[in-house]
Amino acid sequence: MPEFLKLIPVKQALQILLSQIQVNAIAERIDTLTALGRVTAESIRSSLPLPPFPRSTVDGYAVRAADTFGASESLPAYLRVIGEIQMGSSPGFAINPGETGLIHTGGMLPESSNAVVMIEYTQPVGGDTVEILHSVAVGENIIKVGEDVQAGQEVIPYGVRIRPAEIGGLAALGILEIVVAKKPIVGIISSGDEIISPDGKLLPGQVRDVNSYSLSALLDQTGAIPKRYGVFPDQEDTIHSICSRALDECDMLVITAGSSASARDLTARVIIKLGSPGVLVHGVNIKPGKPTILAICNDKVVIGLPGNPVSALVIAGLFVVPVVETLLGLTKVGFHPKFWARLTTNIPSQAGREDWVAASLIIDNEGYQVDPIFSKSNLIFSLVRANSMVRVPADATGLSAGERVEVYLLT
Amino acid sequence: MPEFLKLIPVKQALQILLSQIQVNAIAERIDTLTALGRVTAESIRSSLPLPPFPRSTVDGYAVRAADTFGASESLPAYLRVIGEIQMGSSPGFAINPGETGLIHTGGMLPESSNAVVMIEYTQPVGGDTVEILHSVAVGENIIKVGEDVQAGQEVIPYGVRIRPAEIGGLAALGILEIVVAKKPIVGIISSGDEIISPDGKLLPGQVRDVNSYSLSALLDQTGAIPKRYGVFPDQEDTIHSICSRALDECDMLVITAGSSASARDLTARVIIKLGSPGVLVHGVNIKPGKPTILAICNDKVVIGLPGNPVSALVIAGLFVVPVVETLLGLTKVGFHPKFWARLTTNIPSQAGREDWVAASLIIDNEGYQVDPIFSKSNLIFSLVRANSMVRVPADATGLSAGERVEVYLLT
Repeated sequence: MPEFLKLIPVKQALQILLSQIQVNAIAERIDTLTALGRVTAESIRSSLPLPPFPRSTVDGYAVRAADTFGASESLPAYLRVIGEIQMGSSPGFAINPGETGLIHTGGMLPESSNAVVMIEYTQPVGGDTVEILHSVAVGENIIKVGEDVQAGQEVIPYGVRIRPAEIGGLAALGILEIVVAKKPIVGIISSGDEIISPDGKLLPGQVRDVNSYSLSALLDQTGAIPKRYGVFPDQEDTIHSICSRALDECDMLVITAGSSASARDLTARVIIKLGSPGVLVHGVNIKPGKPTILAICNDKVVIGLPGNPVSALVIAGLFVVPVVETLLGLTKVGFHPKFWARLTTNIPSQAGREDWVAASLIIDNEGYQVDPIFSKSNLIFSLVRANSMVRVPADATGLSAGERVEVYLLT
Repeated sequence: MPEFLKLIPVKQALQILLSQIQVNAIAERIDTLTALGRVTAESIRSSLPLPPFPRSTVDGYAVRAADTFGASESLPAYLRVIGEIQMGSSPGFAINPGETGLIHTGGMLPESSNAVVMIEYTQPVGGDTVEILHSVAVGENIIKVGEDVQAGQEVIPYGVRIRPAEIGGLAALGILEIVVAKKPIVGIISSGDEIISPDGKLLPGQVRDVNSYSLSALLDQTGAIPKRYGVFPDQEDTIHSICSRALDECDMLVITAGSSASARDLTARVIIKLGSPGVLVHGVNIKPGKPTILAICNDKVVIGLPGNPVSALVIAGLFVVPVVETLLGLTKVGFHPKFWARLTTNIPSQAGREDWVAASLIIDNEGYQVDPIFSKSNLIFSLVRANSMVRVPADATGLSAGERVEVYLLT
């Protein structure tokens, strides 16, 4: 099979793949408290306003604002204190003209009051009278009913990843269960005559399986459930049979080939036979990771990753992660914020090809600087030593020291 | 008790606290495969070199480099092919002068060979002879033994958070168990007469507990185990007794006060009685979050957070997260990378005080721009709507539209 007849640019390859897949329709209802990192599968609305009653934002006196107009230190207003509003309960009285009530931060405003004078601007003057030394406007120092959220308002849209703030907001509304996207199950199959399981004893010429484990962690981090099928020799029948089974059992499939060219060809042949429409992209214009295969077989995404560990992890970040995010229904697919940093050393590259180089991003007084870690692409510890990756755009013939370049954190 | 006699700057307050705490000495041995996000509690070294044998990085012919010197398309070298190196096994032959062996990417170099000629630069010419159309230098197209990792080398230092790359690297070395810091247990106690559990029915004047839940999620995200004790009324004896119990049961304690000034005073009084040395900082020069209390009681950190949900989450990000990271032994405490973005709207602020403003960070053609979300600090949904926070430094009297300002992602 002719490999790489036409290398597709990274962005275009991703678009070809993403344009043909749909959100995983399966959702599940879970406890809000366990929802950290999950993605909402429906719009969440509040049935009540928040706050549900007008609250004071300060310690002070609840007033009718009109009663304070013109009040100043030299010419105070005098109001009659008719009570104290207890925290957590209804005031039990209304404020008539000339009256006020002592209120605490977060307390419920009494009926007919419409502002609060801060305690610092008041002075008790004996009996039940308080001096008001400062005027307040209507609405001053209060939060109105529904000022945070109105009844019926959408509070969290569909397709949002839940953070601590969302969990807090849902607790505030008493929404204790939410509907989230079910985690897609992603099958991982490693092939390669030279590859053994990490717990095996190495014989000469053998290496341990790295990709099943680094990819499992990446999938876990992205919100999928990795399902490792193990390591298989480069035999077409064997690989085809395990891939067929995995495709049935999973929502998506990732195959990492052995490192030789014949092993890569074998992966392509297996994917073609797995189902239609089959291979969409074979060969991406990127280093590392040129032999990447992007396919859809029987409505499920199948990705063939290069065998070497660095290429596999870089390509998984660029293609597997966005697919998982799309399956989850995340509305901001691929929003992985970039940094601009001053490059410390020239990075050579071939024009027309996008390069990704492991790097160390450091903050200094002038902003960020980034130091590339040059290494052969099969050395997994070059990524362990890196905290970021520099992207060399396809139209650049290398990047020069001192240039501001694009950097992405490796998390 | 006089509150806020002296407001301490944010950075200084954190230093005061961190300088007095030590890494949680407790470590545990876990499966490497479950170690994502955990922090190494000892230096990890490799007992073997990686790769353990010299490997080819291309498909081609393993040669003695000297045999190819001067070879070109017009004047090829001729070598005798004595075999093919099977993937995953020892070649079983050595390369004598004038000989070569077919090798695949990742294959083990035969003895006495020291370079590989890419298949593209070779041409079989019948029998067992191959034309070499290009010379190679010693070491070309091979990875030497130990080029990724040398035997005995430290591969992951102490105090590193495990990412997919580390898991891959450990798999490559066959290191299936590692020693990581035990997750610290952090007790969370909410106080406030007005606060009820999220599953309760709201009466007038009551609000639901937000902080126990948003803080639990934040702690979970940071690598701690949150332990929620529930909501308690603002009674000194009650709060003291539950705090004493929680301090015994946990590695650290976070107390969120009711919103009134008297509830905050009560938290301070309780913390003072919990153990020595007691309160280190009471009052931080920040908005939101001025009433923050930082304390150490019986060698455990106790943090009193402001009651309002936004202040609580912002202050927890600035103080609780770095403490947890320190307890975990993370060597890069508080490396939460910042962005610089063009501000869209003026942010007013008081000189001398550090302000944190919820915001929306957007990427455009010129880089990042950031749009502040102005809101009263008790409105939790202002954080739900935000993806970031703008920091207004203490020495600024506000920030102006168009300025490049510091932004931190809200994750």
